[in-house]
Amino acid sequence: MKIMKEEKEECVFCNIIEKREEASIVYEDDQVIAVMDIQPVNPGHILVIPKQHLPFIGPEQNQIGEYMFKVGIQIASALKSNDLKCEGVNYIMADGEAAGQEVFHAHLHVFPRFKNDGFGFRFSEEYYNPPQRNELNRIASEIKNKLVYEINKVRSVQ
Amino acid sequence: MKIMKEEKEECVFCNIIEKREEASIVYEDDQVIAVMDIQPVNPGHILVIPKQHLPFIGPEQNQIGEYMFKVGIQIASALKSNDLKCEGVNYIMADGEAAGQEVFHAHLHVFPRFKNDGFGFRFSEEYYNPPQRNELNRIASEIKNKLVYEINKVRSVQ
Repeated sequence: MKIMKEEKEECVFCNIIEKREEASIVYEDDQVIAVMDIQPVNPGHILVIPKQHLPFIGPEQNQIGEYMFKVGIQIASALKSNDLKCEGVNYIMADGEAAGQEVFHAHLHVFPRFKNDGFGFRFSEEYYNPPQRNELNRIASEIKNKLVYEINKVRSVQ
Repeated sequence: MKIMKEEKEECVFCNIIEKREEASIVYEDDQVIAVMDIQPVNPGHILVIPKQHLPFIGPEQNQIGEYMFKVGIQIASALKSNDLKCEGVNYIMADGEAAGQEVFHAHLHVFPRFKNDGFGFRFSEEYYNPPQRNELNRIASEIKNKLVYEINKVRSVQ
């Protein structure tokens, strides 16, 4: 428990939630807080953050995960009805350091996009040599088996 | 109505849902289908697609949006418990052409990430000159006002 407390004290998002650190808040309720990203991809870039210190969103946290997404959808709509340059919206969540997660308190990025905004994706060389159908079917079959197990696990938790 | 029917017939995801087009399915229920992306960022790249032909997910579609995310969370867990190389997971949804949406039937990308997988983001020059707090506060205040309106709109629809 001591380690968890220390982790929480060092967490920038927990500090924001507990108002120990400055933030530009756009939305807050008992479950989530939504704040402006201090290094926006484009103006209007928002982070939806669960109030509980959850490093990741797994199947056991799916209710808060869904709620983050619900708030994110509402934020996207607000971004579009604003004076901000917003021709589209990206939702991005990084789960794990290898996925680009930098703060280990789960968060959903929601940000405006517009033509020639300079943001984009870069891909591996393999991306340009997509797999054959039999390879896709093989992987699908493996995931399918694991997924049935996970769905049952979630059902038994709820 | 005729135009809508034609749009649906031309939609690759509607064709997959109605089994007129081949796909490697990992999950299916009455609301969503999840299939392997034919041009994966990394092996195991999955698309979660609503069965209804919704070009975008807005506040009026938030229930299906949340459900797509719930299924996505379960899929991420299955990806991690598989033999696939999966040290992390990215969730990405593009809402609008300017956000990189290519098929105009809403879909959530869920894909494995691992160190040095070659996938990443590229940013504009402005990204490296982040705004001051007063600018963030100004934008936050505008979004906040619009957001209250959107949340009320959603409540009145449900």
